[in-house]
Formats: sequence, structure tokens, C-alpha cells
Amino acid sequence: MGKYSDFTAYRQKLNQKILAQGNLEIKRFFALDGQVYRPGALTAKTKELLGLASSLVLRCDDCIAYHLIQAKETGASRDEIFETLSVALVVGGSIVIPHLRRAVDFLEELEASV
Amino acid sequence: MGKYSDFTAYRQKLNQKILAQGNLEIKRFFALDGQVYRPGALTAKTKELLGLASSLVLRCDDCIAYHLIQAKETGASRDEIFETLSVALVVGGSIVIPHLRRAVDFLEELEASV
Amino acid sequence: MGKYSDFTAYRQKLNQKILAQGNLEIKRFFALDGQVYRPGALTAKTKELLGLASSLVLRCDDCIAYHLIQAKETGASRDEIFETLSVALVVGGSIVIPHLRRAVDFLEELEASV
Amino acid sequence: MGKYSDFTAYRQKLNQKILAQGNLEIKRFFALDGQVYRPGALTAKTKELLGLASSLVLRCDDCIAYHLIQAKETGASRDEIFETLSVALVVGGSIVIPHLRRAVDFLEELEASV
Amino acid sequence: MGKYSDFTAYRQKLNQKILAQGNLEIKRFFALDGQVYRPGALTAKTKELLGLASSLVLRCDDCIAYHLIQAKETGASRDEIFETLSVALVVGGSIVIPHLRRAVDFLEELEASV
Amino acid sequence: MGKYSDFTAYRQKLNQKILAQGNLEIKRFFALDGQVYRPGALTAKTKELLGLASSLVLRCDDCIAYHLIQAKETGASRDEIFETLSVALVVGGSIVIPHLRRAVDFLEELEASV
Repeated sequence: MGKYSDFTAYRQKLNQKILAQGNLEIKRFFALDGQVYRPGALTAKTKELLGLASSLVLRCDDCIAYHLIQAKETGASRDEIFETLSVALVVGGSIVIPHLRRAVDFLEELEASV
Repeated sequence: MGKYSDFTAYRQKLNQKILAQGNLEIKRFFALDGQVYRPGALTAKTKELLGLASSLVLRCDDCIAYHLIQAKETGASRDEIFETLSVALVVGGSIVIPHLRRAVDFLEELEASV
Repeated sequence: MGKYSDFTAYRQKLNQKILAQGNLEIKRFFALDGQVYRPGALTAKTKELLGLASSLVLRCDDCIAYHLIQAKETGASRDEIFETLSVALVVGGSIVIPHLRRAVDFLEELEASV
Repeated sequence: MGKYSDFTAYRQKLNQKILAQGNLEIKRFFALDGQVYRPGALTAKTKELLGLASSLVLRCDDCIAYHLIQAKETGASRDEIFETLSVALVVGGSIVIPHLRRAVDFLEELEASV
Repeated sequence: MGKYSDFTAYRQKLNQKILAQGNLEIKRFFALDGQVYRPGALTAKTKELLGLASSLVLRCDDCIAYHLIQAKETGASRDEIFETLSVALVVGGSIVIPHLRRAVDFLEELEASV
Repeated sequence: MGKYSDFTAYRQKLNQKILAQGNLEIKRFFALDGQVYRPGALTAKTKELLGLASSLVLRCDDCIAYHLIQAKETGASRDEIFETLSVALVVGGSIVIPHLRRAVDFLEELEASV
């Protein structure tokens, strides 16, 4: 069991607990968080890369992991992902580097798990 | 030994080391950080919920854990805590969700440890 | 015409333009942003103070102005508002001070405009 | 003279003063900040939308204005820009809304100035 | 009347209003905010440069202006200030650039007002 | 094997993987991130303390660990480091405290490993 399966299992378990509480606004936010990445004028892949860059500059490891999974699933290549990382690095500065390291570590596990 | 006792033990051990160094401004800040949550025009419970919401939008897991402990001790109900979480989620966005998951996980351990 | 009327007029004009664009996720987010402050286990006043503290630590002047208006309308006293500001100041640090100054300036205009 | 020309004139004047100081690391950073948006595996348009989303979640009005100009110049449609704004809004939360208002205001001036 | 005198006058007027309210924790925080920059193991100049770098990466224009004034008064040279700006730029990324522009603009007014 | 060696080993391994990808902008950013801390008008020690304060207010544990190592190597004393921490604490607020605890913990391991 690696980081990928740990992350996914914990995410699912706690999301269920949160939604089971029945707070309506939290439920609606979770629904909206799924809808906004659906393809429209932009492809699903581009939207996932937008989510990935935003997660990097805001330095949220779990969000980065989630959007890396989705970026791969919607067809993003390694070069496209690294260019997204490079934009986020220049926007967000050296403070982004530790998250960049963990992003690349997670990406390699993702690639190995296919 | 669970997350709650680990968190509390580490917090106490390091706070002692920090205060033992004798830096006067750090000491005064720590004192002030205790005083500001004392009841006044607002109850202690409301102040702890303000601390909880602020910690969530700033995405500080240890701060969230601390204010969850204090919110429970000052009498906040599960529904009051979840409504605080919902405000923080809407203010802070999906980037708050990983911290929301860990908050609910910690809250369940807190409830089980009573 | 003071800061209060300028803020409110600009806010309304641009919100209308944003909603007129017809992006469904943005519309849903705006609806949710209204719902989450409705009274439930917590009163509307407490929820507005949660929004005010969150806005201060995230240092968003327009959000602070909005929640000051709402806090006054839902019955928050000057002392309750200042205690909320004090919690946010200790949580967020001296970087919050410029926003605290503008918050108090706006609050005084609000009080004078009644 | 509107916001667009004011923004561009101020930006150019101060960039020149900064570069004239001769600090080598600042010069290199400014060069890098131009290079990272050049087309590669991703198009220039997609990279500008990544810059736009990152600027919104980090709530930097001047950065948003700059990437709106660049997004228009590299061919982004109004719908593509609004979908980028919607992703950033859900990621960054209601704290993004004042910047969203100013973004749409600036976008309308941009469209009118063509 | 330029930016420098406007900034200083507004700062003083509102600080007085805030302190006049009599909230004890806010008063103590303001006192602590003065004490922490007094010389100790580090000189006052170095502490002001620490405040300046921190203010830049947190992107607080008023805090930057304040620490530029203090850095000049405690003897920081133009080169020392620009090296501080360069560290903050690399740490904080391109999102810092608009604040860097306003910092240099303010610095030039400061230098001209002597 | 303690935190120090773990941190250094992981940092080196992932930095190599990132640079091996060959993205030119990421490579240039990494080079710039080294250059900006070289002595100039400011000493290397002062620049490392600027990096340390910036990392604390931005709450990046790995960045704090890195600048603690560098601050020690460039000759910063314990008192100078604690005064840097005190400035960052007042600027960044109580949200900095968990990072302050981990910083002091890491510093003690660094001191013990010499």
C-alpha cells in the first residue's frame, strides 16, 4: 500500500463522515466542487491543470495529489504537468518547492501504479 | 495513544522549551494568545468558534485541533461546530477541504475519548 | 456619498454583471454564499462574526466591510465587534493591523450613517 | 484614460526603475517571469489561464489584470475566461469574490478598448 | 502632500481611534508590535529588514511602507533594501511583483522627502 | 537517523528527479534560489535570517528547516535565531506557533548533531 491508496482511502472515508452529518451547505459545496471541473468551453484536462496550478500556489498537498490523479485520468502528459508546475513555481516562489518535491514523488508513484 | 494525546504532549513539551529560552516578546505573545479567548462581551464558546473558523481558513491543522478541544470544553455542540466549519468552507474554498477532513477525524477521536 | 454607499453600489453593479454571464457554477457559489450565514444552531449574528474574523485573518477589505454591515444588522454591539477584531488580530498577527484600521474607519462611517 | 492605460503606464514606469537599480537576481526573476508563459507542451493561452487562476486564488488584482490582458491577446474567449474564474472561485472561496468583481470590471474595459 | 504624509497621517488617526476603544488585548498587541523591533542580539536595522521581507512575502503594502520608513531611519542603504526585496521576491514569487513596484515607488518618495 | 538526515536525503533525491526532467524554467528558478542568498551588501547570515523569517510567516516547515541549517552554517547564534522567530511570530500571529514549535524542535536536533 503506497501513498496513492492511503490518500484515496482516507479521502473517501472522511468525505462519507462529513456528508453523513447532513449539513446542507457543506453538501452543496462538495457537489459544486465536482461540477466545476466538468468540460465546457475548456476541456476537463485544462480545468484539472487550472486546479493543479491553484493548489500548488496555495500549497495544499492533498489538493495537488487529487488534481494530479485527475490530470492523468483526463489525459495530461508528463510535459504538460511539468509546465503547469513551472508556471505555479514562478507565480508562487521558492515557498512552493517543498510541495513541488512531494508532487513529483506522488506523480512517480501514480505512473508506477498504472 | 491517539492523535489527541500525541498532539497535547508534543505541544506542551515544545511550548516549555520555547518559553525556557527567555525571549520576552515570545513570552508576551504566548500570554496574549491565552487572554484573548477569555469571556467578555462574547462568551468563551463564541471566541473559540472564531478561533476555529480563522484556523480553518488559514489552514493550520494544529490550530484547528486546539480550538476543537477548546470549543468542546466551552460547551459547543456538534451542530455548532459543523456550522462553523461550513462558514469557513465557503469563505476559504475547496482548499479548506483536506483540513475539514482532518478536523472531523480529530473531532471524532475527541468525542470518543470523553 | 461616502465609502459605504460607494462599496454597496459597486458591489451590486458588478454582481449583476457576473450573474448575467450565466456561468452556472458561479451562480451556485453566490447562492451558497448567502445560505451559509442563515441562522441554524448558531445565530445569524454569530455567523456574521465568524465571517468577519475569517475575512480579517485573510485580509480582505471588501469582505470585512460586508460582514461589518451584516454584523451591525444582525445586532452585534461595538464591544462584540472589537472582541472579534482582537481574536483575529492575535490569530493573524501585525499584518492584520492595516485592515483593522480600515475596518474601524468603515465601522465609524456605518455608525454615523444610521 | 481608463484603468487599462493607467495600469499599463504605471507598470512600465516602475519596472524600468526596478531594473535600472541593477540587482542581478531581480533582473533574472523578471526574465524568468516572461519565459515561463511561452508556448511549449501547453499553448500560450492555456499558460495564461493558469496564471489567471493562480492570481485569482492568491488574490492579486494587478496580476489578474495582467493575465486578463494576456489571455485576450492569446485568444481566450469570454466563456473560457469565465470558466477559469469559476474554477478559481470554487478553489479559493468567497474571499475571491471582490477580486472576481474587479476582474470582470477590468475585462469589460478591455473588451471596450479594442 | 504625497503618499508618505497621507500614509502617516491616516495611520496615526486610526491607531488613536483603535486604542481609544480600550480593548486590552489590542492595546497589548500594539505595544508588543513596537517592542519586537528594538535592538537585541540583532540590530534594529536587521530587525526592520526582517519586517520588510516578511511584509513583502505576505503582500501587505502598508506594512511594507512602514518598514521602509523604519529601515531608512535605522540606517539601511538602498543596496541593502534592494537585496532584501530580492530575497522576498524569490521566496514569494511573481505575485510579489506589484508590491515590489509600489515599494520602489514609495522608497523614491521617501528619498526625495529627506 | 533523525529528522535532519531524513529531510536532507529526501530533499536531495527529489531535487535530482525534478532537475532531471529538463524543464528549463524550473532549472533556472532553482539556480536563482541559490544565488539570491550569496553575500552582497548584506551578509550571508542576514540573508538566511530574512529567508527564515519569510518562511515562518508563510508557514512552510521544510523552508524553515532549510534556513535553520543555513543560518547555523553562516554563523547565526541561538539568540539571533530566536529574535528572528520573535519578529516572525508578531508579524504572522498565533497561526505561526505550530511552526515555531517544530522549528525549535528541529533546531535542537541540529545543535545536537554537530
